[in-house]
Amino acid sequence: MGEPFAHKLRVRYGECDLQGVVFNAHYLAYVDVAITELWRTAFGGYQEMLDRDVDIVVAEAQLRFHASARFDDELSLEVVVTHMGTTSIVSRHRIIREEELLVECTIRHVFVDRPELSKKEIPGWARERLAPWVAEA
Amino acid sequence: MGEPFAHKLRVRYGECDLQGVVFNAHYLAYVDVAITELWRTAFGGYQEMLDRDVDIVVAEAQLRFHASARFDDELSLEVVVTHMGTTSIVSRHRIIREEELLVECTIRHVFVDRPELSKKEIPGWARERLAPWVAEA
Amino acid sequence: MGEPFAHKLRVRYGECDLQGVVFNAHYLAYVDVAITELWRTAFGGYQEMLDRDVDIVVAEAQLRFHASARFDDELSLEVVVTHMGTTSIVSRHRIIREEELLVECTIRHVFVDRPELSKKEIPGWARERLAPWVAEA
Amino acid sequence: MGEPFAHKLRVRYGECDLQGVVFNAHYLAYVDVAITELWRTAFGGYQEMLDRDVDIVVAEAQLRFHASARFDDELSLEVVVTHMGTTSIVSRHRIIREEELLVECTIRHVFVDRPELSKKEIPGWARERLAPWVAEA
Repeated sequence: MGEPFAHKLRVRYGECDLQGVVFNAHYLAYVDVAITELWRTAFGGYQEMLDRDVDIVVAEAQLRFHASARFDDELSLEVVVTHMGTTSIVSRHRIIREEELLVECTIRHVFVDRPELSKKEIPGWARERLAPWVAEA
Repeated sequence: MGEPFAHKLRVRYGECDLQGVVFNAHYLAYVDVAITELWRTAFGGYQEMLDRDVDIVVAEAQLRFHASARFDDELSLEVVVTHMGTTSIVSRHRIIREEELLVECTIRHVFVDRPELSKKEIPGWARERLAPWVAEA
Repeated sequence: MGEPFAHKLRVRYGECDLQGVVFNAHYLAYVDVAITELWRTAFGGYQEMLDRDVDIVVAEAQLRFHASARFDDELSLEVVVTHMGTTSIVSRHRIIREEELLVECTIRHVFVDRPELSKKEIPGWARERLAPWVAEA
Repeated sequence: MGEPFAHKLRVRYGECDLQGVVFNAHYLAYVDVAITELWRTAFGGYQEMLDRDVDIVVAEAQLRFHASARFDDELSLEVVVTHMGTTSIVSRHRIIREEELLVECTIRHVFVDRPELSKKEIPGWARERLAPWVAEA
């Protein structure tokens, strides 16, 4: 319980900018990859959620940049779910290269109906399947 | 007749890579911007085409890279339509900085029905509205 | 004094995702465009800063997503500088479509030496040129 | 000899557009990933080439789009080197989902000196290490 979910990601050439490091916006895309992979492990895939007419949208994100990832680095994307409310879920992401913490992100997603994208309660099945990665603060 | 359509685009920081120049894949995105802007001028907007249950998909593209665009360059995206077939349209793009030709792209789009995305004949209204930019080779 | 700086940006097709809206990571790229344009107005361009062996790196960012931008929307990117410390500058961004606030972002950049990218004090000339957009809370 | 090099890549959410498929420009980025991974296998990594003051730049690319990749698809990126000239190398890429060919790309890179980026002959060591993937037409 509370084990972080982890996924490996290799930095691409086109994601690095003139400073020789990953352009800041791409870290949010990496966080999205981490969520997709957690969903795969928890639900069998993002599509499985969509097939039940449920989707998620981002409501808030906070990022802290401690050090920079570089081209061809192999990063570890770690995720824990820190809060499950009625309709929203907060996850904390740590982007790590070897032992070094590069970027932290806390992100809040809201569950929505499809295709209207109106708020809905987190379904029981989603709550259960995500339980192994919940580590409420 | 045969006047190239032109649109200005400013190179973004995050589009430049470790070599200090625009990462090659972004030029295809620039070509897409040029098509969108030509569509705006010809049809009133891309959405106006979608509203008539018509869309376009890319079938082929050829790119030649002569020189590199750099961060903050103001580029001119020039387009002429070089062929209108039964279902497909070929356009030739020149990406220019001041007088210098940086990249050439020839791209073929196919007209499709929505939402099936199956091939359809280019509608008469589309053919007429694009006529001012046609310069068959 | 305290007037927001504003820049227009058109949403590109390739920036929109399966939900029909701008993919969340691109808003950080939009914020970067706003900073580049503010720099152009304040300093004559980002390159003018680099030419003085000064650069900036992102240390922190907070984003709040209120509503979604869509393909072909013309957005207004508004910026005010809310804090200038010894080495870091905080700016607040509002991404607006017509009168509607879509996304807010608060971002902290740190001034660094080039090419070492080590922290440095905000130079006097930078402080002066940015003064017109400072609106300390 | 002449075996295609292959690398697996998972389509990301943010790479798919309003049509529900991978936005066309991203396929060029996928081709770049394939080259990076071939370089890793052939040379130990792209950086190993840079460390010898050699780099490559794209001169030309042709793409043919047969079918679309979708979100979360696992693609196989296949590469063979079809030509090694004096200063340039042509590779042919096939982007495949299960048995289906989605996109073909032929791309020509030119070897250059660093940091001037002026054309140079393909070094003997590069020629030798790439030999296993050469399948001249």
